[in-house]
Amino acid sequence: MKIMLTAKSRFSAAHRLLNPAWDDARNYEVFGSCYNPNGHGHDYTLEVTVEGDVDPDTGMILNVKDLKKLVEERVIAFVDHKNLNLDVPFLAGMNPTAEVLAREFWKILEPLIPAGRLYEIRVLETENNIVTVRR
Amino acid sequence: MKIMLTAKSRFSAAHRLLNPAWDDARNYEVFGSCYNPNGHGHDYTLEVTVEGDVDPDTGMILNVKDLKKLVEERVIAFVDHKNLNLDVPFLAGMNPTAEVLAREFWKILEPLIPAGRLYEIRVLETENNIVTVRR
Amino acid sequence: MKIMLTAKSRFSAAHRLLNPAWDDARNYEVFGSCYNPNGHGHDYTLEVTVEGDVDPDTGMILNVKDLKKLVEERVIAFVDHKNLNLDVPFLAGMNPTAEVLAREFWKILEPLIPAGRLYEIRVLETENNIVTVRR
Amino acid sequence: MKIMLTAKSRFSAAHRLLNPAWDDARNYEVFGSCYNPNGHGHDYTLEVTVEGDVDPDTGMILNVKDLKKLVEERVIAFVDHKNLNLDVPFLAGMNPTAEVLAREFWKILEPLIPAGRLYEIRVLETENNIVTVRR
Amino acid sequence: MKIMLTAKSRFSAAHRLLNPAWDDARNYEVFGSCYNPNGHGHDYTLEVTVEGDVDPDTGMILNVKDLKKLVEERVIAFVDHKNLNLDVPFLAGMNPTAEVLAREFWKILEPLIPAGRLYEIRVLETENNIVTVRR
Amino acid sequence: MKIMLTAKSRFSAAHRLLNPAWDDARNYEVFGSCYNPNGHGHDYTLEVTVEGDVDPDTGMILNVKDLKKLVEERVIAFVDHKNLNLDVPFLAGMNPTAEVLAREFWKILEPLIPAGRLYEIRVLETENNIVTVRR
Repeated sequence: MKIMLTAKSRFSAAHRLLNPAWDDARNYEVFGSCYNPNGHGHDYTLEVTVEGDVDPDTGMILNVKDLKKLVEERVIAFVDHKNLNLDVPFLAGMNPTAEVLAREFWKILEPLIPAGRLYEIRVLETENNIVTVRR
Repeated sequence: MKIMLTAKSRFSAAHRLLNPAWDDARNYEVFGSCYNPNGHGHDYTLEVTVEGDVDPDTGMILNVKDLKKLVEERVIAFVDHKNLNLDVPFLAGMNPTAEVLAREFWKILEPLIPAGRLYEIRVLETENNIVTVRR
Repeated sequence: MKIMLTAKSRFSAAHRLLNPAWDDARNYEVFGSCYNPNGHGHDYTLEVTVEGDVDPDTGMILNVKDLKKLVEERVIAFVDHKNLNLDVPFLAGMNPTAEVLAREFWKILEPLIPAGRLYEIRVLETENNIVTVRR
Repeated sequence: MKIMLTAKSRFSAAHRLLNPAWDDARNYEVFGSCYNPNGHGHDYTLEVTVEGDVDPDTGMILNVKDLKKLVEERVIAFVDHKNLNLDVPFLAGMNPTAEVLAREFWKILEPLIPAGRLYEIRVLETENNIVTVRR
Repeated sequence: MKIMLTAKSRFSAAHRLLNPAWDDARNYEVFGSCYNPNGHGHDYTLEVTVEGDVDPDTGMILNVKDLKKLVEERVIAFVDHKNLNLDVPFLAGMNPTAEVLAREFWKILEPLIPAGRLYEIRVLETENNIVTVRR
Repeated sequence: MKIMLTAKSRFSAAHRLLNPAWDDARNYEVFGSCYNPNGHGHDYTLEVTVEGDVDPDTGMILNVKDLKKLVEERVIAFVDHKNLNLDVPFLAGMNPTAEVLAREFWKILEPLIPAGRLYEIRVLETENNIVTVRR
């Protein structure tokens, strides 16, 4: 029996999808309106799931307040109300797809989870487009 | 007894809030992180509500497909995957708050409703910030 | 200051939109795939809103349990898991659009509200197509 | 044309419904399991809607951050993670139905809205039971 | 570390649950009101999840637009605004439960995924009844 | 290919988080406002997922009505409109975190699933705090 805790956070960001090695025609063919020059944006949802044992003293895997604080300080503070192409050091030079966001958030959070282990990260770009990274 | 039809649409856009007549300090004081220089974005929801009589031949106030097509062609096509500060002719020179979006969408749609009358427009910037314009 | 109580219910039903006085071409032109011969269906949401005074003995306009029971017995029991074109006496001979459903539900419920007065009925055919009938 | 801004907040609280002037049988008859002696609870949603003019300097009716701060300090701070029967001075001696909550929140907020006017308060006890107070 | 992309689609369909080898009494005992002769319907949600590597040129596992187009052309076009008992060749002779839908959708999509591999299909018949097929 | 059926239920309950072996200062440090003396509450969602084979006679893993009835009678009836610290025999002496609820619900349901096997239980305390127990 495996037990996991999920905390949901939200952030609002602008982005533009592009491969700078490609010309306009190729970029529009692949990324469509996501390549529009001045960008667009989303209200993202970020779900972080940690697995572990239930601490008999607290009845918790880890304190959801601590998990939310960690996600807030290490991820949300860097991306909320930001432009993902221009403002975020850990995304510099990357194409900010949901796949790339989820993968980079994993790299940041995985070494920092104070108890238990990181099991899964989900990034919902819209309610219809979702990326999951799982151990 | 009044009867109304509501059609919901969605669009994703970038924006930045600012008053160009103000200095940075004043803009940050009023708009906070919404003034960040490179913008951010949202997955907006747009609800358009029309009132009218139920046509005895169709059982409809107006055809929801026609209403959605109108909203798509006259509003969504101009704002979806766009930067609201830079790309939208009917928002040129305006501060793209949800209030301003809802008011300008009203001005566009109100003369175009083919049957019945426009009753209400709602713009949900996030699920927690909503603006309503009503006749 | 006006105070209102809303109770939400759900039902699942099949329907087909058509005007029997029209030929196939005209029906497909107006109703599109909603005219497909064997019907389709929806998970409808029904919201019933009553206005009134707060009873000082109960702190309620009327008991939400009583309101839900009334809606269940007089409306939901007739439409849930039914075919709206074939199975519902009070819709016989009608084109079961969301507008017609909302109007007929209003006619049934309006004389039956035991305390306060019926203020509004909303029928959500999908989360994107909504009809409101209001006093 | 009327324009309105809605801010949504959430709080989690315990409550028990009862009329202390009634005996157990009468209380169970009216309030059902809401009368259970040790209480139960809900994740409430509170929607506060303000109407007004759009300020030409800000593009806003009022700043949604200020509205949320007001609601947070004057309402949410008193009810979140509280027992509505025992812990909330402005509900003392009242039966904490959704109607009573919405009415009392209105009384608190109505004199405090810094710009525009309070138009509507909605309390969602669950997603299916909703009370609206409107000017 | 495994990475997956999920695309959500929606369709509205009618159906009736029955085993033609059983008599009415047995069918009503097992399927209840889902056996009502004229059928009922739902607004279904279909979630399709693909796993794979992130293409360094696009930052994507596969293009979510391509995935949605595939699901639209090969599945949604056959079931949306249709009667699942009568109109869908690949469901002919089957009892259209959510389990059967999810399994048959899997059979169609699994050989067609252009990059990565199909990991999971979810069919939500209502928000409360969900079937998952997973590799 | 693995196939699973999920049924969602809801319940409303009060609780208070605490470790009786700790003093007030330690309890407030760990549990924050969840330690408030008179408790608070939530509208919980409970998702129960069963895996198994699709019965060729019914097209179902097991009948979702039977699964919901089981969850209702063995779990929901004990916790809905109850105080989780005081009213629930199977939680006596426990700290009613979402982790503990999910784990205890698993212990109750696992031996009772009439067909297939229990795969997963999820408890959503709010939409943002979720615990998953998985085989």
